[in-house]
Amino acid sequence: MRIIRLLLEFDGTDFHGWQHQPGLRTVQGVLTETLESMTRESHLLRSSSRTDAGVHARAMPVMFKTERDIPFRGIVRGLNGALPRDIAVLDAKEMPADWDPRWNSVGKIYLYRIRTASIPSAHEARFVWHMPRPLNVEAMQEGAGHLIGTHDFSAFRAAECDSVSTERNMWAVDVIRLEDEVHVRVHANAFMRNMVRILVGTLVEVGVGRFAPGDVAEILASGDRTKAGRTAPPQGLCLQEVFYE
Amino acid sequence: MRIIRLLLEFDGTDFHGWQHQPGLRTVQGVLTETLESMTRESHLLRSSSRTDAGVHARAMPVMFKTERDIPFRGIVRGLNGALPRDIAVLDAKEMPADWDPRWNSVGKIYLYRIRTASIPSAHEARFVWHMPRPLNVEAMQEGAGHLIGTHDFSAFRAAECDSVSTERNMWAVDVIRLEDEVHVRVHANAFMRNMVRILVGTLVEVGVGRFAPGDVAEILASGDRTKAGRTAPPQGLCLQEVFYE
Repeated sequence: MRIIRLLLEFDGTDFHGWQHQPGLRTVQGVLTETLESMTRESHLLRSSSRTDAGVHARAMPVMFKTERDIPFRGIVRGLNGALPRDIAVLDAKEMPADWDPRWNSVGKIYLYRIRTASIPSAHEARFVWHMPRPLNVEAMQEGAGHLIGTHDFSAFRAAECDSVSTERNMWAVDVIRLEDEVHVRVHANAFMRNMVRILVGTLVEVGVGRFAPGDVAEILASGDRTKAGRTAPPQGLCLQEVFYE
Repeated sequence: MRIIRLLLEFDGTDFHGWQHQPGLRTVQGVLTETLESMTRESHLLRSSSRTDAGVHARAMPVMFKTERDIPFRGIVRGLNGALPRDIAVLDAKEMPADWDPRWNSVGKIYLYRIRTASIPSAHEARFVWHMPRPLNVEAMQEGAGHLIGTHDFSAFRAAECDSVSTERNMWAVDVIRLEDEVHVRVHANAFMRNMVRILVGTLVEVGVGRFAPGDVAEILASGDRTKAGRTAPPQGLCLQEVFYE
């Protein structure tokens, strides 16, 4: 039995998230179906993350087991030839028998793109949150600084999040101004449900001046979701990279 | 009566091209409907170009007439608020009474993007032709050189093209290598149906070595569509800019 790790890129716009749901188009559902018609086996795919509907990935690790000895090039080529254009397999690689993409991950980077230009972009619309207001990036950076370190992030998780531990190690929250966009790049050991989107929604409140940068520290300390900003919409979010030891 | 010029950006993937067709989703159809519900008038929209299904635009000039005196900012904001995310209005401006976006144009630039990396890209798939083969860009540049000047481009138009004159002034055909892509940027006074796509299909034959660069001159001189390469798929093509005196 071989353990195969795929790296997946997808445009999440037309998917109801990663996780299989009967009757809905999901990344897990489409990939499982395509893989099974290639291997003639049954597969239970596991991924590093359960992305929400509309959220994208640049390189999401996904694991499956197989008895077949298809070469890696054949797996990549075969899947890319059969998958719809909004999923691409970047790489396939054999892993040790006990490897798990979720439990073995030690860090993840997410990127959130906010388009601040007054005019929307038809070409970028699937990948950005259009928020046509000037954002004070320096204030957002100051606010973001309060999130760095090991904290209880209860204030930044969805009500329906079922994580037992709410402590996370936040290594970086970078707020970067580009010509028409502001990017928020977040690096932590792990994330809870909607965590990046609530964090971005909160930093945007700082950016428009409704929250002071110091409010971020208070919200974090409160552990109270209702004090944080709104959940930013899914289309700006992309899982960029997942790290293993 | 005011003559208004809009500049339109659109992702052509989910449209059956520009031109209104009953029962099909077209750019003209969606824009007309949205505009009419804003102005409460009837409009006959005219554009610089009749793009094919799947072809994109960065800035396509579109004209309509109105009796209403909505300010330009209101037109742009109102349309962008009501249009689907795959169309954006970049600008609105008043033009002289006799202005026509098609007949007054003196030049157009189209960009064609070919993805040459072996792996497809799920994020770029709507905007590139995935052609995972090494392309000899120097040979393509040499072949492209034969197209510059004033020529009869009959060999590079679709069978169903109804242009009366087949002579065009070709000012530039630039072939540019990027990391994962090859771009073909074409600048002429005007284009015939499928002209850029046949031209790209022909240059790709040069790039893979099935045609010699000099064959492009012969194909052009022959005026025979059957001697040119295949029509490149629509998704790589984008109308970039239209020029007026």
